Amino acid sequence: MPLKAILPHTYTHLTGEDRRRESIFKEKNCLEAELRSRLRRKKSKISNMSKRGILERLAEGVVIGDGGFVFALEKRGYVKAGPWTPEATVEHPEAVRQLHREFLRAGSDVMQTFTFYASDDKLDNRGNEAASKHSGAKINQAACEIAREVANEGDALVAGGICQTPSYLSGKTKAEVQQEFRKQLDVFIKNDVDFMICEYFEHVEEAEWAVEVCKEMGKPIAANLCIGPEGDMHGISTGECAVRLAKCGADIVGVNCHFDPFVSLEAIRLMKEALDKEGLKPYLMCQPLAYHTPDCNKQGFIDLPEFPFALEPRLSTRFDMHKYARQAYDLGVRYIGGCCGFEPYHIRAVAEELAEERGCKPKGSEKHGVWGSELRMHTKPWVRARARRNYWESLNPASGRPYCASMSKPAAWGITQGHKHLTQHTEATTTDELSELYSFKS
Amino acid sequence: MPLKAILPHTYTHLTGEDRRRESIFKEKNCLEAELRSRLRRKKSKISNMSKRGILERLAEGVVIGDGGFVFALEKRGYVKAGPWTPEATVEHPEAVRQLHREFLRAGSDVMQTFTFYASDDKLDNRGNEAASKHSGAKINQAACEIAREVANEGDALVAGGICQTPSYLSGKTKAEVQQEFRKQLDVFIKNDVDFMICEYFEHVEEAEWAVEVCKEMGKPIAANLCIGPEGDMHGISTGECAVRLAKCGADIVGVNCHFDPFVSLEAIRLMKEALDKEGLKPYLMCQPLAYHTPDCNKQGFIDLPEFPFALEPRLSTRFDMHKYARQAYDLGVRYIGGCCGFEPYHIRAVAEELAEERGCKPKGSEKHGVWGSELRMHTKPWVRARARRNYWESLNPASGRPYCASMSKPAAWGITQGHKHLTQHTEATTTDELSELYSFKS
Amino acid sequence: MPLKAILPHTYTHLTGEDRRRESIFKEKNCLEAELRSRLRRKKSKISNMSKRGILERLAEGVVIGDGGFVFALEKRGYVKAGPWTPEATVEHPEAVRQLHREFLRAGSDVMQTFTFYASDDKLDNRGNEAASKHSGAKINQAACEIAREVANEGDALVAGGICQTPSYLSGKTKAEVQQEFRKQLDVFIKNDVDFMICEYFEHVEEAEWAVEVCKEMGKPIAANLCIGPEGDMHGISTGECAVRLAKCGADIVGVNCHFDPFVSLEAIRLMKEALDKEGLKPYLMCQPLAYHTPDCNKQGFIDLPEFPFALEPRLSTRFDMHKYARQAYDLGVRYIGGCCGFEPYHIRAVAEELAEERGCKPKGSEKHGVWGSELRMHTKPWVRARARRNYWESLNPASGRPYCASMSKPAAWGITQGHKHLTQHTEATTTDELSELYSFKS
Amino acid sequence: MPLKAILPHTYTHLTGEDRRRESIFKEKNCLEAELRSRLRRKKSKISNMSKRGILERLAEGVVIGDGGFVFALEKRGYVKAGPWTPEATVEHPEAVRQLHREFLRAGSDVMQTFTFYASDDKLDNRGNEAASKHSGAKINQAACEIAREVANEGDALVAGGICQTPSYLSGKTKAEVQQEFRKQLDVFIKNDVDFMICEYFEHVEEAEWAVEVCKEMGKPIAANLCIGPEGDMHGISTGECAVRLAKCGADIVGVNCHFDPFVSLEAIRLMKEALDKEGLKPYLMCQPLAYHTPDCNKQGFIDLPEFPFALEPRLSTRFDMHKYARQAYDLGVRYIGGCCGFEPYHIRAVAEELAEERGCKPKGSEKHGVWGSELRMHTKPWVRARARRNYWESLNPASGRPYCASMSKPAAWGITQGHKHLTQHTEATTTDELSELYSFKS
Repeated sequence: MPLKAILPHTYTHLTGEDRRRESIFKEKNCLEAELRSRLRRKKSKISNMSKRGILERLAEGVVIGDGGFVFALEKRGYVKAGPWTPEATVEHPEAVRQLHREFLRAGSDVMQTFTFYASDDKLDNRGNEAASKHSGAKINQAACEIAREVANEGDALVAGGICQTPSYLSGKTKAEVQQEFRKQLDVFIKNDVDFMICEYFEHVEEAEWAVEVCKEMGKPIAANLCIGPEGDMHGISTGECAVRLAKCGADIVGVNCHFDPFVSLEAIRLMKEALDKEGLKPYLMCQPLAYHTPDCNKQGFIDLPEFPFALEPRLSTRFDMHKYARQAYDLGVRYIGGCCGFEPYHIRAVAEELAEERGCKPKGSEKHGVWGSELRMHTKPWVRARARRNYWESLNPASGRPYCASMSKPAAWGITQGHKHLTQHTEATTTDELSELYSFKS
Repeated sequence: MPLKAILPHTYTHLTGEDRRRESIFKEKNCLEAELRSRLRRKKSKISNMSKRGILERLAEGVVIGDGGFVFALEKRGYVKAGPWTPEATVEHPEAVRQLHREFLRAGSDVMQTFTFYASDDKLDNRGNEAASKHSGAKINQAACEIAREVANEGDALVAGGICQTPSYLSGKTKAEVQQEFRKQLDVFIKNDVDFMICEYFEHVEEAEWAVEVCKEMGKPIAANLCIGPEGDMHGISTGECAVRLAKCGADIVGVNCHFDPFVSLEAIRLMKEALDKEGLKPYLMCQPLAYHTPDCNKQGFIDLPEFPFALEPRLSTRFDMHKYARQAYDLGVRYIGGCCGFEPYHIRAVAEELAEERGCKPKGSEKHGVWGSELRMHTKPWVRARARRNYWESLNPASGRPYCASMSKPAAWGITQGHKHLTQHTEATTTDELSELYSFKS
Repeated sequence: MPLKAILPHTYTHLTGEDRRRESIFKEKNCLEAELRSRLRRKKSKISNMSKRGILERLAEGVVIGDGGFVFALEKRGYVKAGPWTPEATVEHPEAVRQLHREFLRAGSDVMQTFTFYASDDKLDNRGNEAASKHSGAKINQAACEIAREVANEGDALVAGGICQTPSYLSGKTKAEVQQEFRKQLDVFIKNDVDFMICEYFEHVEEAEWAVEVCKEMGKPIAANLCIGPEGDMHGISTGECAVRLAKCGADIVGVNCHFDPFVSLEAIRLMKEALDKEGLKPYLMCQPLAYHTPDCNKQGFIDLPEFPFALEPRLSTRFDMHKYARQAYDLGVRYIGGCCGFEPYHIRAVAEELAEERGCKPKGSEKHGVWGSELRMHTKPWVRARARRNYWESLNPASGRPYCASMSKPAAWGITQGHKHLTQHTEATTTDELSELYSFKS
Repeated sequence: MPLKAILPHTYTHLTGEDRRRESIFKEKNCLEAELRSRLRRKKSKISNMSKRGILERLAEGVVIGDGGFVFALEKRGYVKAGPWTPEATVEHPEAVRQLHREFLRAGSDVMQTFTFYASDDKLDNRGNEAASKHSGAKINQAACEIAREVANEGDALVAGGICQTPSYLSGKTKAEVQQEFRKQLDVFIKNDVDFMICEYFEHVEEAEWAVEVCKEMGKPIAANLCIGPEGDMHGISTGECAVRLAKCGADIVGVNCHFDPFVSLEAIRLMKEALDKEGLKPYLMCQPLAYHTPDCNKQGFIDLPEFPFALEPRLSTRFDMHKYARQAYDLGVRYIGGCCGFEPYHIRAVAEELAEERGCKPKGSEKHGVWGSELRMHTKPWVRARARRNYWESLNPASGRPYCASMSKPAAWGITQGHKHLTQHTEATTTDELSELYSFKS
């Protein structure tokens, strides 16, 4: 089918279609907001309860999430690509804290605990020894402390985070999988996180199991699948996935990771249609990749030949994020954040695009001119000539790579839960096992 | 002229031409090196003199530089694009310190003070008020303290840094320009930096003026121009520039910024030829962009339409950096670092490529598998199948941008020192001045 | 939606997925076929009836169509882009005859009369004066004579051709539109063409009107719409279009023009599904563009910014055509030809790919080595090294255009029958009318 | 070296830099020219001498050449890629005649005999049996007859053509190589061609040998090498090649084939500089490829992976040819034609661009609107909106190939005259020889 025709809402980058918003951004006096925040922060030293809760905030306006920790910290030197586990909370808390601060400064309303893949079965999977070295509980605990510390430097909430487990992929029972979740939840309960995010699930079934356990906490729950418009890995449609998540108790429903902002919004559009049809009204949430993925199949960027070390050319600009934020907002998404590839400046762009709606620009905007406006201070006149929205909005950036194509063919091994190659174990992958894999045509 | 033919040494990315090095990296026992370093660090609390100096290190082997602070900190929210000044050393020292630490961990042997554009005339140029708010001296002082603190967490040296000035661009006299440099040097002298880097000069004449002033300090001096193979902005050939810098006293000569690694190495090749012809033997240094710039003209990436906010697609992968490090080393470059776009993981890749030559892998490699080797811990079998050099070395990454071209046409305003639009002043650029610039065809 | 995922059957060019056919082509002894043909040709001087009819041929095997006359003859200098009318049959019969011969030699089984847009209302539309100068009847008559002459040089059939009319676009009545068709049919009847092709209709309704009139002739009828997978210009689905054409009496149903081979086959797949559901079994026909159009919307290549004078970079190679022919055949298409952009060598590639199925290679293969085999006679050794299928099948050709993107955004004016700008008239378009059009954002 | 910077005169396609010529083309009254031509044609039936000679024409203005016969006729089905020999003059004279006519109609002033590679040693090289079947003399004779016949249908001249020989590549003596040329020249003398073109030589030495023999005829001589800015295959600079050709007696000097128009003009610029320095004033001639080759090395398009069967995406548009014609004219080139890839419409574009300078549009323009002007007759309004120069001049056409890169890496075997793999022989290449070649990395 003609590629372009199918994607009316997505791959129409930076055409001036939303020129209707051309009215220059009016820098509102943010003093009032700042004062409110300071007051709250003061109080919060006594009790976190003084902050408005996530559902209250969503009811009133738009909430900005944070960006991707594993990718950002891998590039900074604290997370290992492969296992992708968050023992940095114990090993290098200063690095994790700094990244939280940068997102806070960029406009994030939520500090999500850096507990991705921090279930015990994953921390010691395939030769990784993060749990053996530090214990899962300790890693989760450190994450909660850092998140709360930084959250209290502003008006942000703390969200506990859990995600899919090797146990599920390996075909363990519901009870076994939920047991893995419970070990993390014990820590979140002890630390009184403000709400839970169940995120990065490829199978809606496992996400339901997670939500079910979280319900026991009595906190608001967000549930995101890492899927696109083609549905989950078991072939359940995107719309049905959303309906199931809402029905099992998620207050906020959406997608994260695996696809770029525009493909992800297409997935959410399908979710919204199905939810509307059922009369369900959870809040919508989107935390996509910052990488362009027009060429992915159902498995998302994991299947791209460039994953995970050669995705650079696909990285979004800040202007792509303006467009993403606007389209997400117009679609009705009220929790707008990012995942892998999202650096603080991407979140800042989201916050700047929605500054009018939020009544305030992010703190970090003191070092940034929206749509390049501060380039008027540049030394070179032709760069000063770029200090305007129109210049950046109509620019199609070159790749600088004349020997590279613009799209890739995904690996498309097409295997999922139940396949022998997906069974996880604590022992390291052997050389023989690797040789067998190398021999497959990728 | 056929584009390809001209660039035999540059744009031949990732063809397995250097397969001769295919011998798997032997993880040397780094214990000895670590012990030496600890011993030195202990001593260094008494005296920095106990560390080997930069010339000693260059004589013995290869020195790894750091990456670009202004671009990295702009993305993290602490530097404003446009003025690009480093008042973050005063405003957010924790952010500057963290970035230094990440480069140290990635393998950098030198902590370059974050004093780029920290001359008084630049700090208050065109409406920027960094000096008025903080004073230039304070900004430079804070930079020295942070750099020394982190340098002493490892075996790194501290280099003071100065660069080109608005005074020169505006046609001020030699005495006036050198006066600007001296104000910064006072701080570097007081802090007893280990050596000086005069970097980011577009005109060799101004670089000579800088080296001349630095000579008064009695420390080793590195001098880099931000030029490519076409020479400086006054039309002086790249080779002659190098000869002039060596003759006026620079111990280390090279290029930084403005061009990608491969174009920059072509510039250094020209420098080397000219230096050899004159019998001059300074050490060679290279700190290029991490952005691919096959399409630049003499002015470098400043002229690209994507500068500075849409360069993302041009960002190098870690494997590009392996290639860069190897080619630089083979060409005889002994000070190998980076500039704008270089993130810690890019420097780590340089250090990993040269690990055998240096006898040690960087600290940060504990969280990284060279050539993707730690992907053997990945959950998905097809990603485990990428845990090998051959896969990554032969990959040509897609841009993910089917509506974008691979090369851009530079703005090419072709103006330099002396042109009225290059005269700098403390007042902000007016709207009328901007309108005039907008009306030019960019 | 992820672009790649949607097109499993289409944009997977040249991935050796069909390596199962790697068995080298066995050059069958074609003597028998040649003898049969000569015998028939001899007889045919007495009566055309001696040739097997189109339906007989389709029942027995695969029929190869010809390529696009208007585009090929525009490039040769005999057709004017804009009106696209075929008065060359009268003005330069030798040029039309030569092109017919080339297609015959390339393997075409059908000589389609060059009567595209040869209805009287089109011949004198918008300042064109082809009918005024030559009369429509004369143009159609000359086309029949040339087609028959060349058909009889081989074993080919003659198909009369009619297509959509300005009358329909301008909202004329069914009777008026059919009257236009009848004027052409009078000539086809007089010349006793072997069958009729109603082709290049954007609205299935007009195609039905055409088929209805052709039924009066008592000859087999093929009916092709110039649509893709998104249906006709009135929003009728592709599947329903096919069902309607079959129900109104077309023996052969399919698509032509407007989309590339792979998108066109996707349209035919939808047609086949709908026909199967209804239990209808017309033969399937495909005559697509030779231009790659992954980026088209519903309107096809007419909407691409490159139409009609900058389509060169999109032109298919002969190897694309091997793939097209194979996929078409596997899908069940039995009438396989081409439209705009198809040159004789593209048709030859189709005939060569299906040589085993047809029991014979085309005459023109005496000057061609399948899959590059005759490159073994090349002077340069590295070109001789390309004399093999594997080399060509795995090659992704570069565009040679580093300043161009790979996909375009269609104009998407989105207007169709009934819109005032589509009303046709004999008078030339005025400068004022053109100015109005220029002012639209294209 | 920065790719873009090196090519200021070449790869700046379709930027409106030459807007100064925006004044709409004034269709001159060509009646006078037509009358002159008819008068001459009438006389020419008595004597060819009545036509102005090539040098006379060049002195007075610009001469338009023709396009590439081997590539065009390969696509039409009459020439075999690999040997590339012109036995079609005997086997299918009607096809050769038609192509001549199309070029005449497009504006060509010269009918170049289709005698490329028609030396006896090439006609029977490596298993080709063209000479054995038809005799070289017969092939050359037929070419002369066809060329003269069509030349006399207009005011065109006939040029005999010879090119490089297998004998030279195989290291035969000067006498042996010249003997091959003499056999062809006998035919040209007998047919009294108007002048000679020695074209497609990779080594200036062989071209000198050819010119030397041609001098014996007493006719004007054009000599073109198939080289680019990097010189001939023996490493002789482009400038020196031109000087040597002029010194040995060529009246017209230039390049043909192997590179695109813009790289070829860069080669001619170097030739001109060298000729000027020596005070030599031959006329300049250019007959480049119609394929974009920004990525070639010294060996030209023969080295590109796409040669010869996947060059389609590189094909120039008619608007590229406008640009080529203008730049060639401005550089002082007075014989402007084309080679491989040039179809009649490309030559028509050259003739239309230079219509003012020549005082007449080509005959074929009766079926063509310059800069798309006749699109005002198109049915669709948005295509009528493209009936203007500005639209086409600023369009950067997409490749339609999102999985393909924009540049290729040449094969670069780097071997030339004297290498064993370049030795030619009459026997076919054996399977073993091919296997050896296949094993090389291409």
